[in-house]
Amino acid sequence: MVVVTAFPADRSYAEALDADDELAQFRDRFVHDDPALIYLDGNSLGPLPVRTQARIAEVVDQDWGVGLVRSWPQWVGLPRQAGDMLAEHLVGAAPGQVLVCDSTTVNLYKLVLAALDARPGRDVIVTDDDNFPTDRYVLEGVAAQRGCELRMIHTDMDNGIDPVTLSRALDDRVALVSLSHVAYRSGALADMAALSSLVHSSGALVLWDLCHSVGSVPVELDAAGADLAVGCTYKYVNAGPGSPAFLYVRQEHQDRLRQPIWGWFGQREQFAMGPSYDPAPGIDAFATGTPQVIGTVAVEEGARLLGEVGMDRLRAKSLALTGYLIGLADEWLTPLDFALASPRDDARRGGHVTLHHPEALRISQALIREKVVGDYRTPDRLRLGPAPITTSFAGVWDAMDRLRRIAADKAYDDLPTELPPVT
Amino acid sequence: MVVVTAFPADRSYAEALDADDELAQFRDRFVHDDPALIYLDGNSLGPLPVRTQARIAEVVDQDWGVGLVRSWPQWVGLPRQAGDMLAEHLVGAAPGQVLVCDSTTVNLYKLVLAALDARPGRDVIVTDDDNFPTDRYVLEGVAAQRGCELRMIHTDMDNGIDPVTLSRALDDRVALVSLSHVAYRSGALADMAALSSLVHSSGALVLWDLCHSVGSVPVELDAAGADLAVGCTYKYVNAGPGSPAFLYVRQEHQDRLRQPIWGWFGQREQFAMGPSYDPAPGIDAFATGTPQVIGTVAVEEGARLLGEVGMDRLRAKSLALTGYLIGLADEWLTPLDFALASPRDDARRGGHVTLHHPEALRISQALIREKVVGDYRTPDRLRLGPAPITTSFAGVWDAMDRLRRIAADKAYDDLPTELPPVT
Repeated sequence: MVVVTAFPADRSYAEALDADDELAQFRDRFVHDDPALIYLDGNSLGPLPVRTQARIAEVVDQDWGVGLVRSWPQWVGLPRQAGDMLAEHLVGAAPGQVLVCDSTTVNLYKLVLAALDARPGRDVIVTDDDNFPTDRYVLEGVAAQRGCELRMIHTDMDNGIDPVTLSRALDDRVALVSLSHVAYRSGALADMAALSSLVHSSGALVLWDLCHSVGSVPVELDAAGADLAVGCTYKYVNAGPGSPAFLYVRQEHQDRLRQPIWGWFGQREQFAMGPSYDPAPGIDAFATGTPQVIGTVAVEEGARLLGEVGMDRLRAKSLALTGYLIGLADEWLTPLDFALASPRDDARRGGHVTLHHPEALRISQALIREKVVGDYRTPDRLRLGPAPITTSFAGVWDAMDRLRRIAADKAYDDLPTELPPVT
Repeated sequence: MVVVTAFPADRSYAEALDADDELAQFRDRFVHDDPALIYLDGNSLGPLPVRTQARIAEVVDQDWGVGLVRSWPQWVGLPRQAGDMLAEHLVGAAPGQVLVCDSTTVNLYKLVLAALDARPGRDVIVTDDDNFPTDRYVLEGVAAQRGCELRMIHTDMDNGIDPVTLSRALDDRVALVSLSHVAYRSGALADMAALSSLVHSSGALVLWDLCHSVGSVPVELDAAGADLAVGCTYKYVNAGPGSPAFLYVRQEHQDRLRQPIWGWFGQREQFAMGPSYDPAPGIDAFATGTPQVIGTVAVEEGARLLGEVGMDRLRAKSLALTGYLIGLADEWLTPLDFALASPRDDARRGGHVTLHHPEALRISQALIREKVVGDYRTPDRLRLGPAPITTSFAGVWDAMDRLRRIAADKAYDDLPTELPPVT
């Protein structure tokens, strides 16, 4: 195979790109401990922003430690506040449509049931077999509970959702189509506007999982005609392990859709503690229980930081980084049994790049030993996420250099073959 | 009215009790800023333990900041670990039955649906009209969703659940009875063993909300025959604003009950990311999405600290404190239009004491101004929770002294009458 790279493969080229990189300064907004570490797993758990570290300490030491219960008046608006920050900077939504709450799993459940109730007489949910596990499981559970059919279309694991396959699955029985915007394995980026329009033509609602796209690619929920969306904040939004998720409900649906978990934080005049559930107006009706304050503050900070950089600049650098990574993989790794498991086309690729290799699991562990943190995904995939806010081109060069040496030297032969628990 | 107090009403008596108090040392395990502050609202948001402050900083700075995604192997067991800690020290459960996850609201929802499915052919849920709002709302939502009847028994707001009233509501249509162990307004303590047995005699399951009892009174879920329970950890467990809740599922029910939110953290071999949902064995099947790590660590620390003191010692001091508070209220406040809104009998009272007063809302605000933090509950109640781990007898005396002066001087006349947002 003849490989054509559009750039020189020596490190000085990466160094030149870094010298020109106007986002390089943002690396110092994050906590760094080990200068040798190359972290390519912000698509699993994003790094700690310095400002977030300070705000968490402030919330714990001052707001909780000193303010005690007297701090609730300033905490109670956080889910909306952080939601509006995500809406403005990251997901292309007008205010009042995004709420930070619960986990992605719980939010999915809430919105899927709300969507089914909004499409009476329709009894089919469509998703694809490459959707993230928790999405498929939640849909399977709801379908079992409601006696619906879960119609699972096939998606090529390397290339993402095929619109033709999706269109064949649509008919007037379909209530909801639930898809991921960026595929968790391949990083394939779906055309949200086109697929939403396709779904709408069948009269169904569409729900987008933004876990792997929020903060990594520009998302335009309002403009793309999305009905519903959910996403997590511990990946590219850098809000920390188990930080709360968010949900989006398009303005026009908010009064018609009713989520199934009727909790006191979704109640109109919550502290009147009245006798019956009377949902709050707007997006607040999609809240359930007491919000996790520390995590919500971290979401707000994470969204603010990405907003300062701007999604357009982040996306431009992200594509440059992943394009560079793919180029080096073509040159160095193809002869070593690697194959690209992500779309090559910029327009169809999210923020991470995945490579096939029969020894992907052990190679991912050997890489960590060599201070390159990516991750493994079943069955034979090495996932590398060069988050543009913290990754340099030289970092990509170094990571790929270490990777090619590990593969060439089989420097993973001593490692165990079991699955390490990562998320 | 002739008031008989069993103790002298001067401050020296309180000082003598403090001198003998073997729990006084534990006050220094908490962050204190203002020595004049008397915090009687640990029943709403508990104070910050020093060790928790350090552990949160460690999780943020080290585990997240430095360890990054490599810390997940040590995080992934936290929900079980913290659950077992609660089980052992606070809720009287053998290991493997308590899981820290989600919010109380979401956990209630999960367990109520699981219970309904476990009692096919029965279509009634019973609760009481003094149950906490989120409990009533969740039950109302589930009843609406499932076409069940929500049978609401009446409970006297000052005295708690009446067993005779409950028994009249039980028949062979009842699938589940959902009750609070300690009433949020009055602090009335239910007899969990007797009421559970009563519920079982009708063939129904019983679910206990422990929000206002966990960490405040000894709870013996296993011994009392409870089927299911939920509770929060930001009150007496001192785990911080919006810390995760917990759920209990009695061992013998775990394989039969299936909760409705099928997420990847409830999946057997989660990281195999298999095609279909296959619930993990035991209590893990009741997990949903990614756990909030910081909050779960705080639960573990909070439970460990209370475990070090021991619930028996905490309960003994708690009853001494609330008994003393009631005695001072009898003596000083009865002439000032206050009336006890909690059970007088020790065996029927939880960790907080509530007083009626027509101006309760403004008095609660005036108290805060005078550095006594209690809270207000609708419609005319002042709630005072002297958590035994941080409250001194002199603190109770000072609080009651400030309260009687405020009431006598009407030192609340300048305050607004709207409802402050507190939880």
